[in-house]
Amino acid sequence: MAGILCVFPNRVGHLPLRHLVFYVDFNMPSPASDLSIEDLQQHIRRMYYDKDVARGIDGTFMWLMEEVGELASALRGNDRENLQEEFADVIAWLFTIANVADVNLAEALSAKYGQGCPGCHRFECECSLDEKP
Amino acid sequence: MAGILCVFPNRVGHLPLRHLVFYVDFNMPSPASDLSIEDLQQHIRRMYYDKDVARGIDGTFMWLMEEVGELASALRGNDRENLQEEFADVIAWLFTIANVADVNLAEALSAKYGQGCPGCHRFECECSLDEKP
Repeated sequence: MAGILCVFPNRVGHLPLRHLVFYVDFNMPSPASDLSIEDLQQHIRRMYYDKDVARGIDGTFMWLMEEVGELASALRGNDRENLQEEFADVIAWLFTIANVADVNLAEALSAKYGQGCPGCHRFECECSLDEKP
Repeated sequence: MAGILCVFPNRVGHLPLRHLVFYVDFNMPSPASDLSIEDLQQHIRRMYYDKDVARGIDGTFMWLMEEVGELASALRGNDRENLQEEFADVIAWLFTIANVADVNLAEALSAKYGQGCPGCHRFECECSLDEKP
């Protein structure tokens, strides 16, 4: 939370004081940049959970694989909009599988990458190039 | 932003007033649930961008494929911790490829899924089960 808290007394010399209070938040995020992992997983759950469960993990994983193929194809091409869509699709299918498998992705990511690279434990990875990750 | 703003005047009758100001935020999120798509992409960029660029999209995609295989294997198993890790790894490799391809994933997800299912345009999908998505 970063911003300016502005407090203007509009009466002085008496109690109780009443104040005009403004909080101007410089970090007010745009809807896109504010999208949290948790919110996205809930959003995907609301949209698709019943269908995902009916389809099961195996069937849902097949859809993910199809999307991964489309992403590979888009990465070879020059259509920026299509590329953006294919990334969104792969992520959506991953999140949907996580819902069926009952995995909280925000917790998973925080646990694995929250303290830096899981290989070298630095925030700027110093593992060698052929090492994983 | 939801909470209580507490303003205590500690001198009255003189100007300028000085105040003790507290803001108690009831919505203070835990680090995991607050993790945004944008923050995660920046975090992954900081950790791996130089190595990702050196490896290129093709080489990085190969790592993603390896992780997808490990996720498939984990989905068949009973190790919950390992499953959580494999989801985190696949997402990390996807984000890292998006960095090299210069795709903003928060924007991509917001554009494709922000207004509901891209198929039926509802927030609870009504597309038939065999339709995509």
